[in-house]
Amino acid sequence: MPFTPTDYRPYDFANRRHIGPSPDEMAEMLQVIGADSLDALIDETVPKGIRQDDPLDFGPALSEADLLKFLRGVSAKNQVFTSLIGQGYADTITPPAIKRNILENPAWYTAYTPYQPEISQGRLEALLNYQTMVSDLTGLDIANASLLDEATAAAEAMTMAQRVAKSKAGAFFVDENCHPQNIDVIRTRAEPLGIEVIVGAPEDLDAARVFGAVFQYPGTHGGLTNFTPQMEALHEAKAVGIVIADIMALCLLKEPGAMGADIAVGSTQRFGVPLGYGGPHAAYMACRDAYKRSMPGRIVGVSIDARGNRAYRLALQTREQHIRREKATSNVCTAQALLAVMASMYAVFHGPQGLKGIAQRIHRKAVRLAKGFEEAGFEVGPKAFFDTIHVEVGALQSAVLKSARDEGLNLRAVGDTKVGIALDECTRPATIEAVWRAFGIERADAVEPYEYRIPEGFVRESSYLDHPIFHMNRAETEMTRYMRRLADRDLALDRAMIPLGSCTMKLNAAVEMEPISWPEFAALHPFAPKEQAGGYAQLFEDLSAKLCDITGYAGFSMQPNSGAQGEYAGLLTIRRYHAARGEGHRNICLIPTSAHGTNPASAHMAGWKVVPVKSRDNGDIDLGDFLEKAQKYAADLAACMITYPSTHGVFEETVREVCKITHENGGQVYIDGANMNAMVGLSRPGDLGGDVSHLNLHKTFCIPHGGGGPGMGPIGVAAHLVEHLPGHVTTGGTGAVSAAPYGSPSILPISWAYCLLMGGAGLTQATKVAILNANYIAARLKGAYEVLYKGPRGQVAHECILDTRPFEKSAGVTVDDIAKRLVDCGFHAPTMSFPIPGTLMVEPTESETRAELDRFCDAMLAIRAEIAEIESGAVAPDASPLKFAPHTVEDLVAADWDRAYGREQGCFPPGAFRVDKYWPPVNRVDNAWGDRNLTCTCPPMSDYAEAAE
Amino acid sequence: MPFTPTDYRPYDFANRRHIGPSPDEMAEMLQVIGADSLDALIDETVPKGIRQDDPLDFGPALSEADLLKFLRGVSAKNQVFTSLIGQGYADTITPPAIKRNILENPAWYTAYTPYQPEISQGRLEALLNYQTMVSDLTGLDIANASLLDEATAAAEAMTMAQRVAKSKAGAFFVDENCHPQNIDVIRTRAEPLGIEVIVGAPEDLDAARVFGAVFQYPGTHGGLTNFTPQMEALHEAKAVGIVIADIMALCLLKEPGAMGADIAVGSTQRFGVPLGYGGPHAAYMACRDAYKRSMPGRIVGVSIDARGNRAYRLALQTREQHIRREKATSNVCTAQALLAVMASMYAVFHGPQGLKGIAQRIHRKAVRLAKGFEEAGFEVGPKAFFDTIHVEVGALQSAVLKSARDEGLNLRAVGDTKVGIALDECTRPATIEAVWRAFGIERADAVEPYEYRIPEGFVRESSYLDHPIFHMNRAETEMTRYMRRLADRDLALDRAMIPLGSCTMKLNAAVEMEPISWPEFAALHPFAPKEQAGGYAQLFEDLSAKLCDITGYAGFSMQPNSGAQGEYAGLLTIRRYHAARGEGHRNICLIPTSAHGTNPASAHMAGWKVVPVKSRDNGDIDLGDFLEKAQKYAADLAACMITYPSTHGVFEETVREVCKITHENGGQVYIDGANMNAMVGLSRPGDLGGDVSHLNLHKTFCIPHGGGGPGMGPIGVAAHLVEHLPGHVTTGGTGAVSAAPYGSPSILPISWAYCLLMGGAGLTQATKVAILNANYIAARLKGAYEVLYKGPRGQVAHECILDTRPFEKSAGVTVDDIAKRLVDCGFHAPTMSFPIPGTLMVEPTESETRAELDRFCDAMLAIRAEIAEIESGAVAPDASPLKFAPHTVEDLVAADWDRAYGREQGCFPPGAFRVDKYWPPVNRVDNAWGDRNLTCTCPPMSDYAEAAE
Repeated sequence: MPFTPTDYRPYDFANRRHIGPSPDEMAEMLQVIGADSLDALIDETVPKGIRQDDPLDFGPALSEADLLKFLRGVSAKNQVFTSLIGQGYADTITPPAIKRNILENPAWYTAYTPYQPEISQGRLEALLNYQTMVSDLTGLDIANASLLDEATAAAEAMTMAQRVAKSKAGAFFVDENCHPQNIDVIRTRAEPLGIEVIVGAPEDLDAARVFGAVFQYPGTHGGLTNFTPQMEALHEAKAVGIVIADIMALCLLKEPGAMGADIAVGSTQRFGVPLGYGGPHAAYMACRDAYKRSMPGRIVGVSIDARGNRAYRLALQTREQHIRREKATSNVCTAQALLAVMASMYAVFHGPQGLKGIAQRIHRKAVRLAKGFEEAGFEVGPKAFFDTIHVEVGALQSAVLKSARDEGLNLRAVGDTKVGIALDECTRPATIEAVWRAFGIERADAVEPYEYRIPEGFVRESSYLDHPIFHMNRAETEMTRYMRRLADRDLALDRAMIPLGSCTMKLNAAVEMEPISWPEFAALHPFAPKEQAGGYAQLFEDLSAKLCDITGYAGFSMQPNSGAQGEYAGLLTIRRYHAARGEGHRNICLIPTSAHGTNPASAHMAGWKVVPVKSRDNGDIDLGDFLEKAQKYAADLAACMITYPSTHGVFEETVREVCKITHENGGQVYIDGANMNAMVGLSRPGDLGGDVSHLNLHKTFCIPHGGGGPGMGPIGVAAHLVEHLPGHVTTGGTGAVSAAPYGSPSILPISWAYCLLMGGAGLTQATKVAILNANYIAARLKGAYEVLYKGPRGQVAHECILDTRPFEKSAGVTVDDIAKRLVDCGFHAPTMSFPIPGTLMVEPTESETRAELDRFCDAMLAIRAEIAEIESGAVAPDASPLKFAPHTVEDLVAADWDRAYGREQGCFPPGAFRVDKYWPPVNRVDNAWGDRNLTCTCPPMSDYAEAAE
Repeated sequence: MPFTPTDYRPYDFANRRHIGPSPDEMAEMLQVIGADSLDALIDETVPKGIRQDDPLDFGPALSEADLLKFLRGVSAKNQVFTSLIGQGYADTITPPAIKRNILENPAWYTAYTPYQPEISQGRLEALLNYQTMVSDLTGLDIANASLLDEATAAAEAMTMAQRVAKSKAGAFFVDENCHPQNIDVIRTRAEPLGIEVIVGAPEDLDAARVFGAVFQYPGTHGGLTNFTPQMEALHEAKAVGIVIADIMALCLLKEPGAMGADIAVGSTQRFGVPLGYGGPHAAYMACRDAYKRSMPGRIVGVSIDARGNRAYRLALQTREQHIRREKATSNVCTAQALLAVMASMYAVFHGPQGLKGIAQRIHRKAVRLAKGFEEAGFEVGPKAFFDTIHVEVGALQSAVLKSARDEGLNLRAVGDTKVGIALDECTRPATIEAVWRAFGIERADAVEPYEYRIPEGFVRESSYLDHPIFHMNRAETEMTRYMRRLADRDLALDRAMIPLGSCTMKLNAAVEMEPISWPEFAALHPFAPKEQAGGYAQLFEDLSAKLCDITGYAGFSMQPNSGAQGEYAGLLTIRRYHAARGEGHRNICLIPTSAHGTNPASAHMAGWKVVPVKSRDNGDIDLGDFLEKAQKYAADLAACMITYPSTHGVFEETVREVCKITHENGGQVYIDGANMNAMVGLSRPGDLGGDVSHLNLHKTFCIPHGGGGPGMGPIGVAAHLVEHLPGHVTTGGTGAVSAAPYGSPSILPISWAYCLLMGGAGLTQATKVAILNANYIAARLKGAYEVLYKGPRGQVAHECILDTRPFEKSAGVTVDDIAKRLVDCGFHAPTMSFPIPGTLMVEPTESETRAELDRFCDAMLAIRAEIAEIESGAVAPDASPLKFAPHTVEDLVAADWDRAYGREQGCFPPGAFRVDKYWPPVNRVDNAWGDRNLTCTCPPMSDYAEAAE
């Protein structure tokens, strides 16, 4: 043997690509921590009593190349038909430049929610464009930065209507022409809240009986109704009118605002976002100015920075659910940022002329289609339509649907005797001819006419997208550079660690992202026949099986589109379980005070009362208080909601006891999976006594955060709950929480790929290294910062809370000052003030290397030294670079540098890259100014100079 | 009709995406120019006498969506087999992070050649890594930044050997074990130069007869030979020894340097670069230090900037062909930068341990394969091998090859009775079993052994890739951030116009780039059976037909991999034509003095003597001188080479006359297609009298420049020359100029897509707007800069030359000062000193919008104003920002700003973006320092501090 084989395994994804520290680095880090080995550290950190019995094992891990080969095989089992089903989803053309430069660009998809505005100006601008687009197209004053999907947006609009309506009526009216999934999700939402849902024809609306009403425009079968009379009646009754409107139709049709609507919602999917078998897509919501403080979701607004320059940031954050907690009426705390950005860029790409051109083409093609049918003697409806018609076929419905499938087309069964056809911007003349053939029409003469089936009264009269951004030159050079400039303004995971506690900003590997671009995953209609989605079926089945292995549950639902939606869906499942057992009265939910704000909000949405349980000084649940409350409310106890490991980042040894107490008192246990990255392979919530958990696939399972969405929050449940999971109208079920039966399937390949690449051993090792990395940071910062809430053996779990509260007193330095100073060091701030106000929670994840952890620790130590300089009196509090942070090029270029510290210290603190420094585009943003001068659409360019004065 | 249809066509790629100025902008620009209409401008600019008769028309243009659909259909006609053919090409795994972040990232692929080092530090670092990798793996002192392909690199090595050898022998020895295409390309190159090529077994080398010899390692059929005795014999004879080495084999095998080789060449394809049916791939060349000044191609070197900080730049530029002109022995003036970057990143990704691990796995699999055959009783060769074996099958060769194809495998016919099998890093156990099955072996017991077939003497003893860059942490987070940091240091087309005259830096649309990532285009072996490449066949046929339409030629060869290769191939075609007519003695080539330096270099390579023809003062060819020389050399006239429109950017009206004179005197006309972007749809070189032209697909036809390659220079020829186009050994032909029969097929979908998206009318409009844009710049700069070489009616063609020479005298400002100051304004400099020393040549292309043109003009006018301030005495020459340009953040952060101008003026001159400013990572680079202290591999980190002192 002339040479010895190397033991280095170059294709080992888990240990060479996903997990940051190399084996050598880990050894050194363990020394710093003072642990003998990684396993020793884990044994000290994760209590024996909660460890799982068997190692996680689902066969050998795949290499990147083998994974792609495997997934190509799976994707080939999905057949891409031309789906003319409509029902809220339309095929669309993603401009290739948007696909490449946004959807496939880590600078966009690895970004976090723009809570830190100074490093988020690019996506904030893109989202402001989105809001402007929505506000213009709907004809309403203000829009938010997107919601999860059209159906949940409609349900949110209902509860919002209840909040703002002066009418105290208890019912809510739903147009029978709404898409079935919208009606179902509204019903789901209404039931626990005790709202009576009246479904009927618009003309049968009895406004006096309702606090609000929602109408679909155009109707699910294509019909156009002018809702002005309904709106007038509602306003008369002091109720609120809501329109669910097709964004593309609004480019031609009278806008909801012009009909008098108070709120408009809908999907922006068909603005360039792939069908994806149901999602993710961005839903929009717009409303009258008067209701803006009641609008759920995030709103981007305009403000100024410390130099008076224009700056964007999230507006009205005090509205957010995490502030409301027990009073919350919505648990929405995320958006579909990446998809909203895509839709907004689609609008920028096409501008109002282009959008109108596209909408006109779609309509003309629909007219041609209808004329062909009419000439062939078919009965076609409706009389007035935008893009959707239906054809009477009598008993031949199935035959025609099958004949269409033979032509590669999916059409929609309407009633028992009609076939629906919805066109879109992808429709070609050949498509229309294929449709005709499916109906036995061999040749239709209907040439494309300048004829319209939109009556005068429905034609839009107002202009839209008048802002210059929608009139910029649309050459691809210009567009590409615009997208690049916006991307460069932001600091995302592709440039630096984002050490956000509870957010698990881990690697989103390129190999995991690649398949979502494939048409076989991207181009399926959510209601396409099951037999065309064999690849997705395999994905759902195998991913569910693996998640069951990981969690110890018996079944999974992929429906919830965010962690909070998962909580809500999980609680509904428990609610149905109780009801099925005749214990539907149970309505008490125990939640520790340390819980994430979504927990009480979700409980409220499930129709329950929240009873808070005390936390002990060390952050653990106060077991005595828990027992007392559980027993006190035993007759009505519905559930408890706990987070494991706790939001304080500690593995509480009492978790089994908590579950036992709950069960003994008739309740079910919801274990929040937000911190699952500390458990995978080590401990299973199902084993601990949990009945339901959601998993944040966008945290633990590598779906990127997308700058604030998409998310995915599937729920796992114990065997007795499986039958109570959300159903969907397309499969004859009810109780859906999302518009699409599987939530956002097109991003599930990411999580599946992650599991397949890591294998059970790799996933387990990732968990261990996540814990190692957090403990390494805690060790390195020891003495400089107090780490709160350590375990009994002095260890933290996968994140650590740094107590920065003392510095306010000792040096007048706030947690905000530290966060902004970290920007100078080239970092996104850790999570601020959660779970403890005034602290920083740091979660490095397993994907960060030792070098990056050290860069962060060096930065934090340098900041501590700057605080110490104030404490010692060497530097006046107001003269510290901490107060001027973040520093910008504007600071450097200004003629006068009258600071007490040098330019070098200001701009290049430890941590900052020298050549490759990230420069924030704005100085510290003034949040209060923005809320006082609220502007949530693109303002004219001239406004800012004035504002700054 | 309730509304009027919009005439805005949102899917019109030509006018909405590719062409920069909108119709409104064009109207305004024409006013500035003073032309009545675009057509009027064109009529004034392009002489009637040269206009083509019929408009360019190849049917309706496709939309982006329809194009992708069409290309998916075409790609489906390519079948991706597992090719175990070897012969210089091996399947490889492109790490997905490299694919996404480099190959699919416009920041990398739209960059230009790094001639302006201050804005190219990222790719220069990546290429320096590449050189270090090559130098280490070959065991030689110095490597260049890549050549076109292995075969041309071998031919370059031959001529280089002739230049450096002390031996005056006239022959060159070629190992018969070289890949057939290498032997053929060497023969092609040798013939016109009068070099006798001796092909034989290494042991038959007669060193005294040759100036050099080249050997393949491992041999084309897998055999290992230690060439040390040959090297010793060659050195004894003062001849030069060359080894063509497999880069992957070098990770295990003794390196060429250790055998005494003077030069090593080879392909780096199998380091992560897709097969692509033949290319593009980067070839490497390394040599002893003593020969470095004779090495062709670009070499990246290390230097310092004005602050003494480390900076990279192209070293030894005086070696480049454009300096040598008539004396040139190589016309290489490009590289395969993007592919070299990919290969270097592959090495960084895997590090030496990973590469060794991969090479060992490949070898072990080959051993297992061989053992399986041996155990089944087959005769297997060679005894010692790395990854390639052959099996004796007697008369069953065809049967076995077919049986293999039935298994989805392509194997290689070796001789008449053997079948060759070459393994690679993609080989799986299932692959090996399929191979066995193809030979009728149902089950082999050969388990994977730790047994080796590499004899002791062949085992590599030296270490490699010891530099820290190859030992950085290889987690994907770290790697992604490294690639992003490098990308951010560079200024490419995705951020700003690159107004390089003669380089046609136009839009590389995302939709055009998308298909090259598809396996159906990327994963085919160049020697796969034709029937597996039906999609490629369609592409070649239709693209050729369209290029014939565009140029007026009768046939095209896709073989040349660069414009200069195209020139060379075209002249060879003419040479063969003369020879076939018994006029092989013709050896005079007339070339105007204004020609690009590659022209004379190519003529020299074709074995011809260059006779320069004078240019008139206005830059046109001196027709009198041309006639005189043509007549004088009529007996020996082989060809003339002209560029149209001229390198001065003028449509010379005499072009037909020049062609006529040439033909009348027995010569053929080569029309250089470098400026074809000014002709497409307006004028056809074939109609003007041209016999051959090359087209720079990476200029006119949208293939991105890739930071210095890939290029594509297919040649079109008149009907009488078609039969003399380059052949290829795989199709029984000879006279190849490239390793692969179709050059670099995997990037041809880009140019094809461009033609299909634009249609004939769109292409013609693009040409017109390219001319409009250039004239707009000329008009806006009028009065500030003198525009040289205008047409008779005062117009320029698609580019304009600005005379900056007067400023040296008037203000001591050089063209370099202006170029560097443009960096401050956020621009890549125009082409410097070509065709006239001391001038700037500006070519905006049709893709730039009016806003970007204005930004550039504003910058140029501001620079002119700064020059005027020196001229007027207001500012001392040495105190001008022009002398300190480009300005960096280091300038701003330095405590002392002792300049005569403010920070604001220095850093934010007109043109510079405010928020989105591009900051060069280094100050002005000191070229001379770098050449004096030549370092062309990654130096230890410590070296720079010293150097700077």
